[in-house]
Amino acid sequence: MGEPLETKEPMKLVIVGGVAGGLSFAARARRLSEFASITVIEAGPFVGYANCGVPYALGGIISSTSSLVLQTPESFKARFNIDVLHNTEVLRVDRGTKTVVYSGEDGEERAMGYDKLILAQGAEPFHPPIPGSDAPNIFSLQTIPDLERIKKYMAAHNSNSVSIIGGGFIGLEAAESLHALGLKISIIEYASHVFPPVDHDIAEPIHTELRRNDISLHLNARIKEIVPPNENSGSHVVLEDGEEIEGDVVLLVVGVRPRAALAGAAGLEVGKSGVVTNEYMQTSDPDIYAVGDMAATKHRITGQAQNLALAGPANRQGRLVADHIFGGPVCYRGNVGTSICRIFSLTVGIVGLSISSLKNLGMEFEYATIHPPHHAGYYPGATPMTLKLAFSQTGKVLGAQVLGKEGVNKRIDILATAIQARMSVFDLEHLELGYAPPFSSAKDPVNMVGFVASNVLRGDVEVAHAEDLMDGMLKEYQIIDVRSPGEFAKGHVVGAMLIPLDKLRGELKGIDRERKVLVYCQVGYRGYLSYRILKQSGFEVWNLDGGYKGVVQGGYTELQASLA
Amino acid sequence: MGEPLETKEPMKLVIVGGVAGGLSFAARARRLSEFASITVIEAGPFVGYANCGVPYALGGIISSTSSLVLQTPESFKARFNIDVLHNTEVLRVDRGTKTVVYSGEDGEERAMGYDKLILAQGAEPFHPPIPGSDAPNIFSLQTIPDLERIKKYMAAHNSNSVSIIGGGFIGLEAAESLHALGLKISIIEYASHVFPPVDHDIAEPIHTELRRNDISLHLNARIKEIVPPNENSGSHVVLEDGEEIEGDVVLLVVGVRPRAALAGAAGLEVGKSGVVTNEYMQTSDPDIYAVGDMAATKHRITGQAQNLALAGPANRQGRLVADHIFGGPVCYRGNVGTSICRIFSLTVGIVGLSISSLKNLGMEFEYATIHPPHHAGYYPGATPMTLKLAFSQTGKVLGAQVLGKEGVNKRIDILATAIQARMSVFDLEHLELGYAPPFSSAKDPVNMVGFVASNVLRGDVEVAHAEDLMDGMLKEYQIIDVRSPGEFAKGHVVGAMLIPLDKLRGELKGIDRERKVLVYCQVGYRGYLSYRILKQSGFEVWNLDGGYKGVVQGGYTELQASLA
Repeated sequence: MGEPLETKEPMKLVIVGGVAGGLSFAARARRLSEFASITVIEAGPFVGYANCGVPYALGGIISSTSSLVLQTPESFKARFNIDVLHNTEVLRVDRGTKTVVYSGEDGEERAMGYDKLILAQGAEPFHPPIPGSDAPNIFSLQTIPDLERIKKYMAAHNSNSVSIIGGGFIGLEAAESLHALGLKISIIEYASHVFPPVDHDIAEPIHTELRRNDISLHLNARIKEIVPPNENSGSHVVLEDGEEIEGDVVLLVVGVRPRAALAGAAGLEVGKSGVVTNEYMQTSDPDIYAVGDMAATKHRITGQAQNLALAGPANRQGRLVADHIFGGPVCYRGNVGTSICRIFSLTVGIVGLSISSLKNLGMEFEYATIHPPHHAGYYPGATPMTLKLAFSQTGKVLGAQVLGKEGVNKRIDILATAIQARMSVFDLEHLELGYAPPFSSAKDPVNMVGFVASNVLRGDVEVAHAEDLMDGMLKEYQIIDVRSPGEFAKGHVVGAMLIPLDKLRGELKGIDRERKVLVYCQVGYRGYLSYRILKQSGFEVWNLDGGYKGVVQGGYTELQASLA
Repeated sequence: MGEPLETKEPMKLVIVGGVAGGLSFAARARRLSEFASITVIEAGPFVGYANCGVPYALGGIISSTSSLVLQTPESFKARFNIDVLHNTEVLRVDRGTKTVVYSGEDGEERAMGYDKLILAQGAEPFHPPIPGSDAPNIFSLQTIPDLERIKKYMAAHNSNSVSIIGGGFIGLEAAESLHALGLKISIIEYASHVFPPVDHDIAEPIHTELRRNDISLHLNARIKEIVPPNENSGSHVVLEDGEEIEGDVVLLVVGVRPRAALAGAAGLEVGKSGVVTNEYMQTSDPDIYAVGDMAATKHRITGQAQNLALAGPANRQGRLVADHIFGGPVCYRGNVGTSICRIFSLTVGIVGLSISSLKNLGMEFEYATIHPPHHAGYYPGATPMTLKLAFSQTGKVLGAQVLGKEGVNKRIDILATAIQARMSVFDLEHLELGYAPPFSSAKDPVNMVGFVASNVLRGDVEVAHAEDLMDGMLKEYQIIDVRSPGEFAKGHVVGAMLIPLDKLRGELKGIDRERKVLVYCQVGYRGYLSYRILKQSGFEVWNLDGGYKGVVQGGYTELQASLA
């Protein structure tokens, strides 16, 4: 509980950091208390700006930087009667005297007392120790000053190419944004796929989409050094295998680290995921709160502390700290990691845990993959999506990944809501969602994946996954392709025999009853029908999850027969 | 529980009706039992077609009728080993002998025994007793034969105009669809607004959108007669007030009624919402099930029996009947009435109950209205939406209505999921949804409406609603417009005085402390900030829910000051 105030003096609230979490706190605190003294101290020149828009402003998708600046110290004072000190660094916190010491624009050190201190300093770009990474053409891309520095450099040097080191959110958004300027763009990613929260097979189509847009993509890349421009050549990134990647400008966007130095120096507990907080976002000192990217919060599925650099949670945390201080406590419930990213014509989203994360955590789970159209197939403009759902043996939804051109954000948000409501896959079967042909199907993809997952848990189907079939496991099965001859001819699984579904009942005699059967179709449904026929006819059978489409789209080339 | 089979004979399943619910049952029954005998008897010429696509096929948005036909008797036999008798009418059910008697294409009466009978006959278009409504240019619009009849008539008669009687789903979809053909279109609606599930203020922008697209719209219309074409004039609809509305073709789409005659004649219990069913969709005879538009099901919020003519629930009901028969019982949970409809550039959706429904039911509730952009305002292409949320005193979400150009279907489905998960408005505050600038805001509209609703329930704000201010209630308040002078000059509430929010703290002395204050801004947020300032300064104050935008958009002309 936020304690009731014991003095008649207005409460003194000091906030360090004036972006998402800090300003959300400040505004709500003012709404709850017209008479509190509220001061925001921000190290940078801007407060209340939309840093999520920075990558889009770089390439001009957002045409003016000023549209990102949602507040100024003057506007914030006029509207909220809140003092904002910008370009002002907080040097230390003295918890004994409940004072912050800061250095203002004039360089003078000053002190300010607080009753409650809210740390909302965000995260700082991680700079790996790459030789040459301190050259003047190498930039972070996080803040408006970063944005202005890059734009100024590119204009002054007439830059034609950009190397983006890091294929996460910011790197992908920056690539799309800069692409619009006609620059030559490379993405250099340490991992085997971009957008690391998702599994490799979900990322593979993103790789294709990047290349289709002439982005030069370097995966599993080990950087040796960054060479600045010289008389002989422009700036370039050199990989350990000797490859040289052109980049008049290099963006270093490999992730962020919680900005926890001030908190640590003040003796607050800091873990590797950031400043340690309780469910009210209080640090180890109950009069000091930490919110947003600098704070460690709990993952709702794993229960583990994590660092999450997302604007939505930061805003909500700021809000509930104000509620706590002014006597209406609301718990922070932790994160499910709902994320979404557009990459040219594709959108990818994830909520909860990927299959690779679940494996790394050693958790028990099942998963199912479907490739439905995003709305009724008979209505013009339907585009395919891929939806991969992980769930426990009891049906608890553990994670969902969605990829496609349209309707991805809707399904991610439905599934995010379902996970937060602790719905099971059996609940997904029942969900009554809005259906009209331009928007969905009578059985929405979310219902469909609920059906498939429930079928798995009820034992109505057993599935095999492409990633488990690598390394020769395929030889254990007699493999039946139940698609049409035309589909088979365009590509099929190594060693598969063709028995189209509609002929399967008549051809059971030709299948060896002593051997395991792996059946598959294009996306999984005809395979499931075939599974039911075979299973009830006494065969030991598995259906290939996600069908042949999953094999091709996921990049499982080992499983694909080479065509004459 | 579905009883275990007692004989070695394959179970005989007979399904009456071969569209959504009937075919979903049949296909799942086959998957669960490879050896059951399954027969579908369909009165019409087509089985397994997408009747939701019929309005779109009428105007050619869906270019070919054949794309609506998802199954044929032959394809269904080949794939599922299910017999389909089409153009076959079931004449009666003899429950004593467990037999259906039907009349086939050849006119012969035949009988067929069943172990379990599934009635999935759908609903029939309601034809009100309008004089002249039996003329040859008057049509229903439900089935593919309807579609073909209308197209044939229009081609033969070179029709130039269509009068659509009924402004629900089908009428609105048909209007948009036919508009593409360049026809003169009228909509004639008995009620005071189209799309009856929503409230009047949500429907008002749809009226504007229809008129903007040259649809002639007649609300509160009482039809006297329909006059067929004669030597002097084309066909037209005559209203009681004498108005004549041209219509070479007249579509009669005023709703449907459950097709319950066969069930009634067999002595099954039938209520006014359709054939009475239990949670497994069993009728009063446990060996007979009814699914889809003909069955009465329970509304999850009111608990009352209702008739719902929607494809999604029909499909799910068919599915769970198969589960029940084959020993894996799954309850039908009832409906929340999730509906969505596109009207040219607008989309409207509803889930749960509207404000007018709640009032009619005499339920206690609160509601809140917001008008946020559909994604980050600073990202190009943001369009405004309206979101109206009804909730109980304990925070239970009772209903949501959403209107806008983009992102409406996502928010309706998030809220539909939340309602089915029994989430409260406090849960909506916390929802972690996918945020990137092209898709949403850091505080999604669903979070925002959760904030507002929670503020209402926590007593942080009291709201007044435009519809309650009609009839002179406005005079009770001193009304303060806290927008800018420019906004005020473009239109404001009758009797309002202007005090821009940023000057409010300095002008409290000019406000009469003895009188109630009604404060408003454009959409509600600045009004809320003003409420907090005034309330904490000792005033008795209300904020106008949804702001001045709600007044204008909702058509509350009485509340608008006439401008010089």
